[in-house]
Amino acid sequence: MFCNGTLTRFGNIQMCPSSGILNYGQGLFEGLKAYRKEDEGILLFRTEENALRMKVGADRMCMPSPTVDQFIDAVKKTVLANKRWVPPHGRGSLYIRPLLMGTGRNLEVKPSSEYTFLVYASPVGNGLKGVLNLMVEDNVHRATPGGTGGIKAVTNYSPIYKPLTEAKAKGFSDLLYLDALTGSNIEECSGCNIFILKGNVISTPTTHGTILPGITRKSIMEIASGFGYQVEERAIPIKEVFDAEEVFCTGTAMIVKSVASITYQGKRIEYKLGAETLAQKLHATLTGIQTGVIEDKLGWTMVID
Amino acid sequence: MFCNGTLTRFGNIQMCPSSGILNYGQGLFEGLKAYRKEDEGILLFRTEENALRMKVGADRMCMPSPTVDQFIDAVKKTVLANKRWVPPHGRGSLYIRPLLMGTGRNLEVKPSSEYTFLVYASPVGNGLKGVLNLMVEDNVHRATPGGTGGIKAVTNYSPIYKPLTEAKAKGFSDLLYLDALTGSNIEECSGCNIFILKGNVISTPTTHGTILPGITRKSIMEIASGFGYQVEERAIPIKEVFDAEEVFCTGTAMIVKSVASITYQGKRIEYKLGAETLAQKLHATLTGIQTGVIEDKLGWTMVID
Repeated sequence: MFCNGTLTRFGNIQMCPSSGILNYGQGLFEGLKAYRKEDEGILLFRTEENALRMKVGADRMCMPSPTVDQFIDAVKKTVLANKRWVPPHGRGSLYIRPLLMGTGRNLEVKPSSEYTFLVYASPVGNGLKGVLNLMVEDNVHRATPGGTGGIKAVTNYSPIYKPLTEAKAKGFSDLLYLDALTGSNIEECSGCNIFILKGNVISTPTTHGTILPGITRKSIMEIASGFGYQVEERAIPIKEVFDAEEVFCTGTAMIVKSVASITYQGKRIEYKLGAETLAQKLHATLTGIQTGVIEDKLGWTMVID
Repeated sequence: MFCNGTLTRFGNIQMCPSSGILNYGQGLFEGLKAYRKEDEGILLFRTEENALRMKVGADRMCMPSPTVDQFIDAVKKTVLANKRWVPPHGRGSLYIRPLLMGTGRNLEVKPSSEYTFLVYASPVGNGLKGVLNLMVEDNVHRATPGGTGGIKAVTNYSPIYKPLTEAKAKGFSDLLYLDALTGSNIEECSGCNIFILKGNVISTPTTHGTILPGITRKSIMEIASGFGYQVEERAIPIKEVFDAEEVFCTGTAMIVKSVASITYQGKRIEYKLGAETLAQKLHATLTGIQTGVIEDKLGWTMVID
């Protein structure tokens, strides 16, 4: 369905003013990172998972999608063409952003007649070492059953700018959204999944269509399971969050980040932080695998050169 | 905030791949029509309402907006520059599409650093004379409380492509959405508002944030009121729709269109159609005002030349 693409220098693209993405938000994105190994080779992490997630999203948004091979090939070629922008080992990564969007003329409210798949990249640092201070949002919902919360549609993000901007102005790092139907279960933050730890049990909300099935989320569940923790995917009532020993978030940008506090209806709960946390251990293990420092026994990484 | 724009020929625009509209759907649109009068003058209809609605939407989407004067001026200049594309009186209209979008580089999930306001136009016919056969959608919701259903965000449209495409494949014209919280009250269709008639009472769902405050909707309420009908804005349970004598939809594209049938959970209800319907009377009056055939006592139209 998609013809072979070409590599071009980063710069403006041509876009029809009546295209589907500009008028009706018909677009999807992905996000992944390339890391430089100690020996200078470059590693990609579970790229086929991003390719598969884009296929699922494309189906929901009535778009054709590139094949898994086309997706991986485009990512690889983009990284190799930008090799000099992949930061030195331990100093950051090359963030890769694939976009799939309706680019045909599209005045009527219906799927576009033409689509564009493109990939661009930008070097990013390791991210702030900091912690997250979350505020529970009980007015705006990120997603609704039957909606697009379970895919990386562009339409999931700008609608939460307003509450997110307001929360940031109050000093919070991000919002923690509740489910739209009952308003009593936690879902995720604006761009990351959430986990709670109590005893030997790590829990995270089930991805039943309103929560993004994060690839970092999935990897962390597998690593934690390997550590001997019991990992549960289930509905998590906000009340249960009050009793957690440790809370952390996962995502491509932050990998794993500890949650220092959660504020809900004026009440602020604080959690365990520091070197002894599970979050730190998980972060070290996952980034170790991603950067080639820890042996990749699960076949998650791919060396490109 | 917005500098003065320029007129250019319709064609591709330059867009940064990492712009807010392409990555996070930060965009709004408007839709309005210019009609040719019998005497060749061109009429615009309640343009300041579109300008004001864009301001409300921009605030919700964390975007700056053009002033009402800038909006009206841009619309006027676009129409005048495309005067030869305004169809002859009675043969259609020039459909005008203002867009406001985040166009600054925007890798992070946050409001864009730069915005573009543009207006393009296309001649359109009077629309099919046909009627609507609606299917009630009880799985996917168009909007959710706290969300963006009450503004013309681009993010409200592509998420309903999938159920809409499936309904069209079954022969329906459009979907009628239910409220996300209770699933029991009607809201609107994919791109038009809905009214029900029983006796002397015309009812339409209240626009409390999940329903677009249509300008045609507002105008029809005023016209119907002038005809002596009692016009009510309120929650309308889907069950009440079964007892309606007449149902019709309103929107910029269709003006007023009769609903022939509504299908809900396998049950199909049919409504009054034809020359004697209120829908036809309202359509004739509103298009009469819009095209300069009926005297505009309310100051809704503006002649441009």
